[in-house]
Amino acid sequence: MKLATLPNDTADGSLVVVSRDLTRAVTASAVSPSLRAAIDDWTSASGPLRALSDELNAGRATGDFAFAPEIARAPLPRAWQWLDGSVYEIHLDLATRAYGLPNPSYEHPLMYQGMSHRFLSGRDDVPLPSEEDGIDFEGEFGIITDFVPAGTTAAEAEPHIILLTQLNDWSLRVPGRAEMSRGYGWIWAKPACSVAPIVLTPDELGDAWSNARIHLDLAIHVNGAQFGRANGREMRFGFDELVAHAAYSRDLCAGTIIGSGTVANADYKIVGSSCIAERRGIEILDHATSQTPFLTFGDRVQMAARDKDGQAPFGVMDQRVVPMRRAAKPAPIRSARAARS
Amino acid sequence: MKLATLPNDTADGSLVVVSRDLTRAVTASAVSPSLRAAIDDWTSASGPLRALSDELNAGRATGDFAFAPEIARAPLPRAWQWLDGSVYEIHLDLATRAYGLPNPSYEHPLMYQGMSHRFLSGRDDVPLPSEEDGIDFEGEFGIITDFVPAGTTAAEAEPHIILLTQLNDWSLRVPGRAEMSRGYGWIWAKPACSVAPIVLTPDELGDAWSNARIHLDLAIHVNGAQFGRANGREMRFGFDELVAHAAYSRDLCAGTIIGSGTVANADYKIVGSSCIAERRGIEILDHATSQTPFLTFGDRVQMAARDKDGQAPFGVMDQRVVPMRRAAKPAPIRSARAARS
Repeated sequence: MKLATLPNDTADGSLVVVSRDLTRAVTASAVSPSLRAAIDDWTSASGPLRALSDELNAGRATGDFAFAPEIARAPLPRAWQWLDGSVYEIHLDLATRAYGLPNPSYEHPLMYQGMSHRFLSGRDDVPLPSEEDGIDFEGEFGIITDFVPAGTTAAEAEPHIILLTQLNDWSLRVPGRAEMSRGYGWIWAKPACSVAPIVLTPDELGDAWSNARIHLDLAIHVNGAQFGRANGREMRFGFDELVAHAAYSRDLCAGTIIGSGTVANADYKIVGSSCIAERRGIEILDHATSQTPFLTFGDRVQMAARDKDGQAPFGVMDQRVVPMRRAAKPAPIRSARAARS
Repeated sequence: MKLATLPNDTADGSLVVVSRDLTRAVTASAVSPSLRAAIDDWTSASGPLRALSDELNAGRATGDFAFAPEIARAPLPRAWQWLDGSVYEIHLDLATRAYGLPNPSYEHPLMYQGMSHRFLSGRDDVPLPSEEDGIDFEGEFGIITDFVPAGTTAAEAEPHIILLTQLNDWSLRVPGRAEMSRGYGWIWAKPACSVAPIVLTPDELGDAWSNARIHLDLAIHVNGAQFGRANGREMRFGFDELVAHAAYSRDLCAGTIIGSGTVANADYKIVGSSCIAERRGIEILDHATSQTPFLTFGDRVQMAARDKDGQAPFGVMDQRVVPMRRAAKPAPIRSARAARS
């Protein structure tokens, strides 16, 4: 089944079930008010949600309405935990060779903890403080877990992967290099990520979900020109292994999102890259200097995984980078008394 | 005022106002169901909470009851964001000299993003996977913010510091060194932190809250023997600067917790250390080899900030390190339908 989140007067938005072709939806409020709540109670919620999905796809749902992915919020506008891997081997090899980064041992996957209190939708403008920061995107796939006990092994992990997602891990490369050198991971370099409008259960992808990897091309366009179309399959560690890695010394709460890191393929000369830094690294290796600039305000980035039929199962992300303005405090969302989750 | 969280049938627990001497409490459920909800709506909630506090401290509260800090949960059993600095200069200097860590430039504070979906109480056992991991504690002070817009400066930051806290950032040093060398920060090395039972508004500390620093001794005992009693005052960057640093490219959600990193003083030969790694580093510098072992299962760590009168305004933390057992899924907390926050 496919799920999305529509805006309402809550911080988490309202849950809808979306038809396979993304043109129709039906509210899931009788099951769960939000995707976050549904994931918290997935054992109870997933069956009724699947029944709604079956009815919708059979044209038998009552109260269904026309849906367009661009009206959706991020599926989880906020989450308790966001852990991002970096496990495409060629991407790491290129970074090691071009930028002199430490060569990963591959004994364990690379993974950092990112900010999770806000995720942008696939249509939100992306506010950033400065064009001098080396503004970049990272096209990624991801998964969402139910509760995962600490100590869960990779062999035990796959049933905990309840939903698949696609996202853009916006990155600021100039502060990012400095932060990485300090060993503490990233604060400045990793503002809010954007998430594609549709999340889906693994069965929706058929053979394209295999070996705990998403075997889809991730088509990326910058200002209308194709930038990359790497396939998700070449992860050195599968999402099952990423879950197990994350759960070494902690339980993973329900609704933990884990990312793949920048999607990349060994035939990058043909398929291109999923971030500017990688392309610039290839240019350095080939020509001793990088040519492709980082983004400037007004630049537009589109991302959509494509299946064999050219469809975009996660919907299409289409965003512009804009100068950050000081945000006002968000409007109060319900009263504190009602906020009992 | 002083606040705490008692267990109930919700993930966030129930909010109580605690008397200055920590012996009495009164429910704040008429104001906010939980501390998390109160912080989300601090402009509305703080006045009525302060009124309750004034009544309680004047002996005029209705429905007050005997309170003991050891029955409390972590004030925020979960939070959307936990950012931990490391800004005690002598601590960093010792680490640089003893372990060959990179010398921080001090242009910006060191800060990493940590797991925030679970905080242990100051009395919970601390389950960890292996004694081989170099089990250590880190005694810290921290602050909790309301909503902080991205781009907030240090000069603007102090009014956003609404509550002060004391915590123990449990750390696994063996995986920690390996993770730090990769530049991505810590996953394995940073399991759930523990938090002292009482959070308090800055005015509660009088002169001991000054220059956006907590000027209290943090007394730490390991298996009953004093380990350290460093004062919080010697932060190279104050909490105002830590807030501004964190908010460079992101808004901070209400309820963001920011830590100081391991409290340390220049006269460490007298006051001792707030983590084992620092003491081992001093031993290496003095004797070329470290003598103090890391913790083993069953070891007990107590922490309490002490004011001039010897009182512990945040309460006393007293915990044992125990072997991790595979956690069962937590019992469902309310129905998904009720969870609308």
